[in-house]
Amino acid sequence: MKSEIIKVRVKAVRSRLKEGCIACLVVTAKANVSYLTGFSGDDSWALVAGHSAYLITDSRYTEQAKGQCPACKIVERKTPLAKAAADIIDSLKAEGAAAIEKSATVAEYNALKKHLKRRITAVGGIVEQVRQFKDAEEVAAIQKAARIAAKALSALRPYVRTGITESELAGELDFEIRKLGATNSFDTIAAFGPNASRPHHQPGSRKLKENDSVLIDFGTKYNGYCCDITRCFAIGKPSKLYQRVYAAVEEAQAAAIAAAKPGAKLTEVDAAAREVIKAHDLPVYGHGTGHGLGLEVHEAPTVAHQQKGQLRPGQIITIEPAVYIPGKLGVRIEDDILITQTGRRVLTSSCPHDFW
Amino acid sequence: MKSEIIKVRVKAVRSRLKEGCIACLVVTAKANVSYLTGFSGDDSWALVAGHSAYLITDSRYTEQAKGQCPACKIVERKTPLAKAAADIIDSLKAEGAAAIEKSATVAEYNALKKHLKRRITAVGGIVEQVRQFKDAEEVAAIQKAARIAAKALSALRPYVRTGITESELAGELDFEIRKLGATNSFDTIAAFGPNASRPHHQPGSRKLKENDSVLIDFGTKYNGYCCDITRCFAIGKPSKLYQRVYAAVEEAQAAAIAAAKPGAKLTEVDAAAREVIKAHDLPVYGHGTGHGLGLEVHEAPTVAHQQKGQLRPGQIITIEPAVYIPGKLGVRIEDDILITQTGRRVLTSSCPHDFW
Repeated sequence: MKSEIIKVRVKAVRSRLKEGCIACLVVTAKANVSYLTGFSGDDSWALVAGHSAYLITDSRYTEQAKGQCPACKIVERKTPLAKAAADIIDSLKAEGAAAIEKSATVAEYNALKKHLKRRITAVGGIVEQVRQFKDAEEVAAIQKAARIAAKALSALRPYVRTGITESELAGELDFEIRKLGATNSFDTIAAFGPNASRPHHQPGSRKLKENDSVLIDFGTKYNGYCCDITRCFAIGKPSKLYQRVYAAVEEAQAAAIAAAKPGAKLTEVDAAAREVIKAHDLPVYGHGTGHGLGLEVHEAPTVAHQQKGQLRPGQIITIEPAVYIPGKLGVRIEDDILITQTGRRVLTSSCPHDFW
Repeated sequence: MKSEIIKVRVKAVRSRLKEGCIACLVVTAKANVSYLTGFSGDDSWALVAGHSAYLITDSRYTEQAKGQCPACKIVERKTPLAKAAADIIDSLKAEGAAAIEKSATVAEYNALKKHLKRRITAVGGIVEQVRQFKDAEEVAAIQKAARIAAKALSALRPYVRTGITESELAGELDFEIRKLGATNSFDTIAAFGPNASRPHHQPGSRKLKENDSVLIDFGTKYNGYCCDITRCFAIGKPSKLYQRVYAAVEEAQAAAIAAAKPGAKLTEVDAAAREVIKAHDLPVYGHGTGHGLGLEVHEAPTVAHQQKGQLRPGQIITIEPAVYIPGKLGVRIEDDILITQTGRRVLTSSCPHDFW
């Protein structure tokens, strides 16, 4: 990871720490460690203190860390993580409390507290708030992940035939993703017919029939960054109901995408999609309309009702309205959207809705 | 999950809680929730209180929970998890502190504490200690996972040819696993030639050559239970060094397996393997000799030096000694072993060392 990028990120975290009179932050969440150091290995913590970011790792990873983290002070620990972190913190001159992320386990918090000479507090969301705003390289990685996803989905064509099971189809897609040099960003959902009405359906032994419908919700990860896409299509002759629902969901999605721009309230974007579904006299989905994504497939912000806040340039969110009619069908269409200075850019346009 | 099995597990947890004068335990770790309820979904907690196990879930999962958890009181929450758990705990008559698992996040702990009227403490390892001892169904699931793994590995034969990359070979194996109705228990490691000297190698673009060596470390998951297998083999003519190292590792593994029986100290089993490697004048591996496995691929106990404790019937552990010679080669052989009343049983015998 380029040193300049890391420095910008660490600076943003530091200014948030200053606001809370916090001398240093122990970062334990893997995505946050990776974000602040460039390190992609396991079992390591980051520490933001003064102008520096430390990576605390062990001998298995020292070589890898030297290559990945030129902007960090790499500490090869001989003691447990909490003790190694406490030793660095205790050597700091800066005044103020030490903080650890709230997503750390109680065991990690207790261990750090035990070894530490200064006061410790737990704070939430500091790195996550910074991570919301993507730089050019992050945008490029997500767009590249989306291109790979589109290629993999296209390669699935010969396998979409009557008799294939959901589980087999999901497996073929995952294999295509792997062949293209990427990995899944989450477990692929493939749901046929009425199974698509369950948003969290796990692919099973249901076979594809003639005149059936297919929902595929999947994502790829490239260079650590996730995309998240849902496409729906009908095999053979779609029912009138399916056609009506599909058109409504597509319209709802377009409305929410059009509403997504700098300054738009999260609730407004959410409502834009729901109102279209309501106007079509169809049941409104129970989940949110979208979520941020990046190093993790679910990040801040959440696009839903009761969510405070507005969209701002640099955020990347999914927009994924749906209609679920239990026992009959489910249609969800999901794209990944970058909020720009002037509006939005669809990062998943390489994967057209009508690819089928 | 059968009610009788769940009752035995809950009873074992309860007796450990009684020893610590704890009235109830909030279980947040996914594998522990699954173990105590039979539930396989996400975003849910278990609560052990009095003679009962509760599953606290939401409307997305209520139907699934009714099918999977006949022995549990299913609570469909309308509030955040911590509030829902606190409400049940506050309605209990039993005296004593409430406990939450130490693996819970600080945020979860704080939220529970905020809502709760009684004292709260964090405890570690209670369910994990019980989970070490597998019942007949758990053993059968791991053995079945191993049989699927063996089948998938056999099916890999046609793909093991010069020119294939590590990443492609790992992808083919994962696809075979998927086709057999199972999933990976962790990311498959495929390492060619000198790459195998890094225990945590990530499969990359290294191509298989003539007279090369292959290390595959992989596992499948069946019915929630993991197996974990490593096999090594040479393509074409293996070097004298490779042959010497392979024979030493196989001998070391046999020695550790022979040492694994009820009452054997963990350190003794660990030493049994290391001494063979030393006697062959080869470098001794830096990692442990083995680990428990079950619902998770790494569980208690850990077979390593400095580990207190003895093996007991019902535990399932890996035995995986290795020799790593940086820049040259790596050989690791790993099997899964059940400790029985009288000795041991190799659960991965369906996958012979010389399958190649």
